[in-house]
Amino acid sequence: MQRILVIGAGKSTSVLIEYLLEQAEALDWGVTVADRDLELAKERISGHPRGDVAELDAADTSLRDRLIDSVDLVVSMLPAHMHPPVAQACVRYKKHFVTASYVSSALRDLDEAAARAGITMLNEMGVDPGIDHMSAMRGLDELRNGGARIIRFETFTGGLVAPESDDNPWRYKFTWNPRNVVLAGQGGVKFKHNGRYKYIPYHQLFRRYEPISIPDYGDFEVYPNRDSLRYRSHYDLWDVETIYRGTLRRPGFCSAWDGLVQLGLTDDSYELEDVATMTYRDFVNSYLWYDPDISVELKLRAYLKLELNSAVFDKIEWLGLLEREPIGLDRATPAQVLQKRLEQKWALGPADKDMIAMLHITEYEADGQRWRSQSSMVTLGSDPVRTAMAKTVGLTTGIGAKLILTGVIDHRGVVIPTRPEVYGPVLSELERYGIRFREDRQRVE
Amino acid sequence: MQRILVIGAGKSTSVLIEYLLEQAEALDWGVTVADRDLELAKERISGHPRGDVAELDAADTSLRDRLIDSVDLVVSMLPAHMHPPVAQACVRYKKHFVTASYVSSALRDLDEAAARAGITMLNEMGVDPGIDHMSAMRGLDELRNGGARIIRFETFTGGLVAPESDDNPWRYKFTWNPRNVVLAGQGGVKFKHNGRYKYIPYHQLFRRYEPISIPDYGDFEVYPNRDSLRYRSHYDLWDVETIYRGTLRRPGFCSAWDGLVQLGLTDDSYELEDVATMTYRDFVNSYLWYDPDISVELKLRAYLKLELNSAVFDKIEWLGLLEREPIGLDRATPAQVLQKRLEQKWALGPADKDMIAMLHITEYEADGQRWRSQSSMVTLGSDPVRTAMAKTVGLTTGIGAKLILTGVIDHRGVVIPTRPEVYGPVLSELERYGIRFREDRQRVE
Repeated sequence: MQRILVIGAGKSTSVLIEYLLEQAEALDWGVTVADRDLELAKERISGHPRGDVAELDAADTSLRDRLIDSVDLVVSMLPAHMHPPVAQACVRYKKHFVTASYVSSALRDLDEAAARAGITMLNEMGVDPGIDHMSAMRGLDELRNGGARIIRFETFTGGLVAPESDDNPWRYKFTWNPRNVVLAGQGGVKFKHNGRYKYIPYHQLFRRYEPISIPDYGDFEVYPNRDSLRYRSHYDLWDVETIYRGTLRRPGFCSAWDGLVQLGLTDDSYELEDVATMTYRDFVNSYLWYDPDISVELKLRAYLKLELNSAVFDKIEWLGLLEREPIGLDRATPAQVLQKRLEQKWALGPADKDMIAMLHITEYEADGQRWRSQSSMVTLGSDPVRTAMAKTVGLTTGIGAKLILTGVIDHRGVVIPTRPEVYGPVLSELERYGIRFREDRQRVE
Repeated sequence: MQRILVIGAGKSTSVLIEYLLEQAEALDWGVTVADRDLELAKERISGHPRGDVAELDAADTSLRDRLIDSVDLVVSMLPAHMHPPVAQACVRYKKHFVTASYVSSALRDLDEAAARAGITMLNEMGVDPGIDHMSAMRGLDELRNGGARIIRFETFTGGLVAPESDDNPWRYKFTWNPRNVVLAGQGGVKFKHNGRYKYIPYHQLFRRYEPISIPDYGDFEVYPNRDSLRYRSHYDLWDVETIYRGTLRRPGFCSAWDGLVQLGLTDDSYELEDVATMTYRDFVNSYLWYDPDISVELKLRAYLKLELNSAVFDKIEWLGLLEREPIGLDRATPAQVLQKRLEQKWALGPADKDMIAMLHITEYEADGQRWRSQSSMVTLGSDPVRTAMAKTVGLTTGIGAKLILTGVIDHRGVVIPTRPEVYGPVLSELERYGIRFREDRQRVE
């Protein structure tokens, strides 16, 4: 029997554990779920005969090491900064290691030692990073193997709400780390457009969104991610004239978010004075000039140069940022105050379903003609436990673990899924679970 | 004979050394000027019988220590980050120490040791910091000693060009550290206005300037400095309703500078790609969207929402930022490219004269009435050597040195000039050199 240890039983692990247990009988696996919340771990295996649980606190390194030593493969579903000690123990005890996170420099440093230990450390097996890499590379490799020259590559991903739950004016709710959403784009972005390097400072970013459509799912808008240029090396796209990586939102999101950026509410670099005595209205007012005769509403409209009927104003007001309600924090940066309010307003309700959308646009020359191909994938959550995020991340991670244990992935050391021997079987199996890309292609005149 | 060592013979030391030598006979002083450029040091003392020179490289700590050991007082005119080792040697050899720079934490740490060694370490003896502190405190202390309650305190300083040299569209030339000017305000600002804390993010800063006038010198505009709140402790202004510290520019500067900020050209956080092959026009274009059919001029007007006749556009164009001229740097951040261009265009010419302007506005209640007092000082440069900057910094530093050597300042340890026993005699002597404040006062209805 092969044994798998899943460390972490949080929200995004439901589908992963379900996937592993589903195949445990046929593949002769035993699955141990370790979490500091034993009840949560029990809930995840829900009495499955092949499942087992352990109460594991992050500080208890001796129990952690014993658990790792007793299995063949470890999936770490911990927050990314907690991976390195687990990865080091996996090298020490010669156990394979799988995560859905970016390869950190601490992990990259283990490449040689992992190869010597004969283990595979498979990372970036989530949705972004993960399915984005795999689907991009599959499309690009197919084109290049067919002799095409890639001219332009743009790739977009978004964690959003399913159409049936798309019921607030922002057309957005938190389905992933709120802090990352609040701080997105800070430091400005760079990309390449038709051979020219382009830079956008943070304070212009949410004005430079572009409209885009996904077949069957309607209109979106996209703002660029921080550094698109590094994907030239990830995807072997050094000669490409346009490279752009962006985040998908529903129309109207970016200009309203720009209002919050223009005010300065997303700043995380300093703490506010006397925040304990402030209401949300005071918070917004502290970014507007002093004038005792004009309401905060009017000053806000004037500052952002908004019309009397303004969708941007309505969205900001809908967040309750103009209400005389105490913030209730003792100390906070502007970004922390904003995040608190957003977590109240953008919370996913018990009946809400999320949605992961992904889109790649590639322009290329083949047989003397210019083509534009579009590859899109949308996954909807099924219920509050089987969210789109849990499905896309969990299945990808689980399939990765299976491919190592069944010997399909036999490269040792640190691996990310840009290799055909990884992305090929993973994408095929994801399709069986309904996570499939739709391909469209047209000639460019 | 008392001996003084001046380390550094750069541009701002001319008036300081002249001042010290002028009094050397009467006060029985010997003045040694040490610089790594021996010729420059010789030029500063120009054969004065009480003057002496030394060729001193920053790395030669043994010569530095011997020089320090041979004198009674050291004036360090080095860049601020080079003060600490000199200050430490002064403690070791028990020599007084004077600078025009802010007290760094490294210097503050020497307070106890300096007091034990029986020496005075007098800092912030320049114009800003220096004359600003002294004149502010004199005014505030006078009012408070007379029983007034301070309600509002605003203070503004600017290093500008004299009216006769005010001959470019920006009405500005570099008279001090260009890098500080390019990066000014980054990180955003905070201040207090009528009892409310106010914050302005960097990208709004140069839109939130305010007009102001100085008697006999006309109109200016002012933008807030980074953290006005800390002046509450410097000046004992904890209960004040408004505190605001700003920088003076001539009208029109701020909105044109805002254009450069909106583009993103002042960012110092990343290096540009392929800067070696770029012209200034390419540089600006890399912040505008791609469109091969529209000129950079038109894109720039559209991006900044400028009218066809626009003083902002004219100022940006005047800087040569739209010219097809190679930048000529191998690697650079946007801010470094901009600084290079500005140093060409905003260079002080050989016949140009500079100007230091300072203004304090205080509102207070006394005898049941509300008053507004305004205290202003303008100093003009006399010639390219005796600049306003060299005069205000040099005389203040020199007077500080004299007051220590003559025993007027007898407090030991680290001292800044907010004490009456320092600012009183310094401001009196500065007046004899024409650096005087004009006081105006009116009732507030």
